[in-house]
Amino acid sequence: MTKFWGIGVGPGDSELLTVKAVQTIKKLDVLYTPQAHKGGASVAEKIAAPYLPDDLEIKRRHFPMVRDWEVKRKSWKEIADEIATDVQSGKEVGFLTLGDPSVYSTYSYLVELLEGKIEVETLAGISAFSQIAASLSVPLMLDEESLEVVPATIDADKLGQIIDVNDNVVIMKIAVDFRKIYQILKIRKLLDSTVVVERASMDGQVVKTMSEYSEDAELPYFATALMKRGDSYATS
Amino acid sequence: MTKFWGIGVGPGDSELLTVKAVQTIKKLDVLYTPQAHKGGASVAEKIAAPYLPDDLEIKRRHFPMVRDWEVKRKSWKEIADEIATDVQSGKEVGFLTLGDPSVYSTYSYLVELLEGKIEVETLAGISAFSQIAASLSVPLMLDEESLEVVPATIDADKLGQIIDVNDNVVIMKIAVDFRKIYQILKIRKLLDSTVVVERASMDGQVVKTMSEYSEDAELPYFATALMKRGDSYATS
Repeated sequence: MTKFWGIGVGPGDSELLTVKAVQTIKKLDVLYTPQAHKGGASVAEKIAAPYLPDDLEIKRRHFPMVRDWEVKRKSWKEIADEIATDVQSGKEVGFLTLGDPSVYSTYSYLVELLEGKIEVETLAGISAFSQIAASLSVPLMLDEESLEVVPATIDADKLGQIIDVNDNVVIMKIAVDFRKIYQILKIRKLLDSTVVVERASMDGQVVKTMSEYSEDAELPYFATALMKRGDSYATS
Repeated sequence: MTKFWGIGVGPGDSELLTVKAVQTIKKLDVLYTPQAHKGGASVAEKIAAPYLPDDLEIKRRHFPMVRDWEVKRKSWKEIADEIATDVQSGKEVGFLTLGDPSVYSTYSYLVELLEGKIEVETLAGISAFSQIAASLSVPLMLDEESLEVVPATIDADKLGQIIDVNDNVVIMKIAVDFRKIYQILKIRKLLDSTVVVERASMDGQVVKTMSEYSEDAELPYFATALMKRGDSYATS
């Protein structure tokens, strides 16, 4: 029985794929990847490029980034149907996701649509927030501490509450709503306690504290913040 | 310049090391690992075993698991001093951690003690909670959702509050205080919405819902819970 494999490729560095991800990619017949905005290879595909066999059939498919759920669902359904057909015809089929497939990934919707139809196996990847902590050699959490991970699109009041009760907060893809996040941290005097990593483990990685930005700064799409209460990164 | 490398080996399956972790292990001169309770190789060392070169010097060191901070600090300090000496003498020195070095790891204390003395590089690993989601092919979080990760030792009232305001909660190493966690979830009718994975990706992995345990069940040391509000795992 062949399967549909959801493969996490990690945050950027091709060496951050797991051994299992690399071995799985090598036995695939077909690989689905999200299509990049300008056509061509997506970030996930570029990360996995060193491991893609020459004879692997690559199907780049467009995942619309729009607010309209019906539009998105329709595209996902078409792609899921195509994947199901490929697996049912005896092919090993893969799908690449940036970071970890379990962390804010469209892959989860594909799985939902494929459930009960074909066998699915998910291979964990290094998430952006895990890589940020590693690149700084700081813990995400220790002892009795907790960690909360939130998306940048979270409601401002809710984000404030979460920051107030947690020692460690990761905010993903902060460029999407940077001003809001900056202001919430500034009011709480936490700009120096929040570190931002742009393009973690990719070419052009940048590490700064939140206090080194202005509130109207324009950040790249891949930028994640880690707030650690009590820690100051200001001198590093 | 040689370095001290903190290497995450992932949750159990040797294929869940990253390519970078494997390549780094192969160039080490000395490897420090936590000593197992009964002597012999620790879990982390066994996971990395397929990649350890024959001529690698392995230094198993005892990390006391006691409440007394002074006892622990003293042991860590001795190990950190030994590591610093090895790196300063021109050796590439590694330290293995189970899962991800940034997630509740003693490694973070070693880094603190070594800061400013030698160069440190941390290699992220797949965390137990990431592997649990992957093994179930469920998302840790999606869209506007957040994820909170807490240790089993957390205060009961605080755990209750966290569960009440979060869609997704991971509770690590639940065997340490299972009855407390069970009761908190039971009162909230969340036993069916909480899945437990024992020994994720290791030999003898078990997946159950919380409702399949009794409150006085004895679980293995490696057992992690994932509560997803609204989801019922009862029929799976």
